Amino acid sequence: MSALVPSPVRIIGTGLIGGSLGMALRRSGAEVQVEDVSPGTTALAVELGVGTATTAQDPAPALVVVAAPPDVTARIVADSLGRWPRALVTDVASVKQIVLEGVRHHADPEDLPRYIGAHPMAGREVSGVIAARGDLFQGRPFVVAPHEDTRPEAVSVLKGLAAEIGSVPVVMRPAAHDLAVAHVSHAPQVMSSLLATSLLAPDEAALGLAGQGLRDTTRIADSDPRLWVEILGANAAAVSTVLEEVRARLDDVLAALGTMPGDPDPSVGSRRALAELIADGNRGVRRIPGKHGGATDAFATLTVLVPDRPGELARLLTEIGEIGVNLEDLRLEHELGREVGLAHVAVDAAREDLLTRSLTERGWRVADA
Amino acid sequence: MSALVPSPVRIIGTGLIGGSLGMALRRSGAEVQVEDVSPGTTALAVELGVGTATTAQDPAPALVVVAAPPDVTARIVADSLGRWPRALVTDVASVKQIVLEGVRHHADPEDLPRYIGAHPMAGREVSGVIAARGDLFQGRPFVVAPHEDTRPEAVSVLKGLAAEIGSVPVVMRPAAHDLAVAHVSHAPQVMSSLLATSLLAPDEAALGLAGQGLRDTTRIADSDPRLWVEILGANAAAVSTVLEEVRARLDDVLAALGTMPGDPDPSVGSRRALAELIADGNRGVRRIPGKHGGATDAFATLTVLVPDRPGELARLLTEIGEIGVNLEDLRLEHELGREVGLAHVAVDAAREDLLTRSLTERGWRVADA
Repeated sequence: MSALVPSPVRIIGTGLIGGSLGMALRRSGAEVQVEDVSPGTTALAVELGVGTATTAQDPAPALVVVAAPPDVTARIVADSLGRWPRALVTDVASVKQIVLEGVRHHADPEDLPRYIGAHPMAGREVSGVIAARGDLFQGRPFVVAPHEDTRPEAVSVLKGLAAEIGSVPVVMRPAAHDLAVAHVSHAPQVMSSLLATSLLAPDEAALGLAGQGLRDTTRIADSDPRLWVEILGANAAAVSTVLEEVRARLDDVLAALGTMPGDPDPSVGSRRALAELIADGNRGVRRIPGKHGGATDAFATLTVLVPDRPGELARLLTEIGEIGVNLEDLRLEHELGREVGLAHVAVDAAREDLLTRSLTERGWRVADA
Repeated sequence: MSALVPSPVRIIGTGLIGGSLGMALRRSGAEVQVEDVSPGTTALAVELGVGTATTAQDPAPALVVVAAPPDVTARIVADSLGRWPRALVTDVASVKQIVLEGVRHHADPEDLPRYIGAHPMAGREVSGVIAARGDLFQGRPFVVAPHEDTRPEAVSVLKGLAAEIGSVPVVMRPAAHDLAVAHVSHAPQVMSSLLATSLLAPDEAALGLAGQGLRDTTRIADSDPRLWVEILGANAAAVSTVLEEVRARLDDVLAALGTMPGDPDPSVGSRRALAELIADGNRGVRRIPGKHGGATDAFATLTVLVPDRPGELARLLTEIGEIGVNLEDLRLEHELGREVGLAHVAVDAAREDLLTRSLTERGWRVADA
């Protein structure tokens, strides 16, 4: 038995998130019942170890987790509140205010204190229970989003659940959550997709000049249209707020560029607008927390030349291990038409000198970056 | 003596690019003379092995490479054409049309056939001769940008130089080059900076929800304002062309979002606009060539769970090597506050099944992605 999670837990909807949650909760000792609108999916979830199929004899759940698509979540939450009058009911939709409004609309007002929203901030490029993993939430933020009428103990229960599955609980109001994810997830998706859309125009020769910067900036543009229509539609107001600011700034940039039509001595004002864009961007990107929640500057990055043959990168990482330095991040730099790569190796800044010296002694070509 | 590069080469301006070029050319056997407007920088460049300091007794250069800041490049090219009446003169500024116009303005028209633009597509997060490396251009595109009056043999000389330093020569007209880099480099920089600028608004709790997508999308936002004001200003027309399209599409997105103010059943039209944005972005990002110039679809990505301890990633890569599969790309996924990581391993799509099976047999947790 889990000390922190009320049992049994009923999971409604066994896709990637519901499935992974079931696996994680079972690991922690909770009894998990699963149901999905598709009997085939339910059977597969049971087979994969997400939980047990439900029967008429099941004890009533103490906790219900609705992990259904966003557009049906509120109704299933309201149904669940009525179906199990003593259960706490939560949902894991990636937007929270619209679900809360739907629950308020559909549910008996007396049941509302037993509803609390949640958002485990995990996901993958793939979906479905087949991709579910019990460790999906490990080390990820788990947003607990109580509304004003939520029972206080519901917050404790969900924080306990988050801890039990290895997540980092973060308590936020639904509207604050929605604005936060608009900033860190939804607006970035739109910006990346907008930029990728502009790549439909240039010819192949132009795209042959692409470097790592373009690849990084557009990586998330390769995501599921169906999923993102749901997410953006359900968080339209918050996403618009962020994107309206971006458009205002883009207008400034276009105005500044418009005063520079090949003029070799552009006006001070236009140059300042561009410099401020880049400088403000510098400040913005430096606000993103680093890997283990620490500041990004705690790490130093070394660049190592790696022959692009099987085993060479492994040899580098083996030797870094032998030197006794832990890798905080690794990024490979692509090369066009050549069999050589650059490995950008991020390590604890305090170990940088040791690693540079040791790798150089071992014959690696290293440069600080 | 290099077979492909006329010698001596005079490099004017010894920053990152000029310095790296000198190192690379010397390796290939060319005699390299260096000069910089700063005597201290020249001395440092000589000390670092970029080339030899110039004297009054120097033989006239056969090739002059102007690697000065963009705003003074055209004038130095024009001066050089007059100073050495038999030399071929090139420049490595990252925009080409504005330099050509400046050279046309400042130079004797009879000298123009000896001028040809170039753009070695390499760079680092750091600048200055101290960061110079002879391998900076290895495997990178090297744009050779002749104008209509350039001598045909100048194109051959620069293609030979590009090959000599390990680059992949690409011949483009100056205007085509500028539009290409607006697409693959300058517009991505503006979009990344715009997005990063929007991160100045949210509070720390919101930024704590950031994942890898935001990190990738904003990585290049951490770049030098001074440098980028020069680049964007010098390529204002082409960058505006790309960004105007982006703004038009952003307006469509905002209009679509505006018709979805929390409405659980948004209109078909709005949903379609969002779905098309993401779908067009999918198509755009898939046009970016892969690592060795091949199409991205030739690779498959596996996701492997890796304990975040020294040696574990190395062990994974060693075993991938043992299985006999070459790694095409590797990306590590960060976790907040937890010692576990996901390695996204890209391999030849034809080897995907073998690798998945073999790694699973060896006890690794693998999921397709």
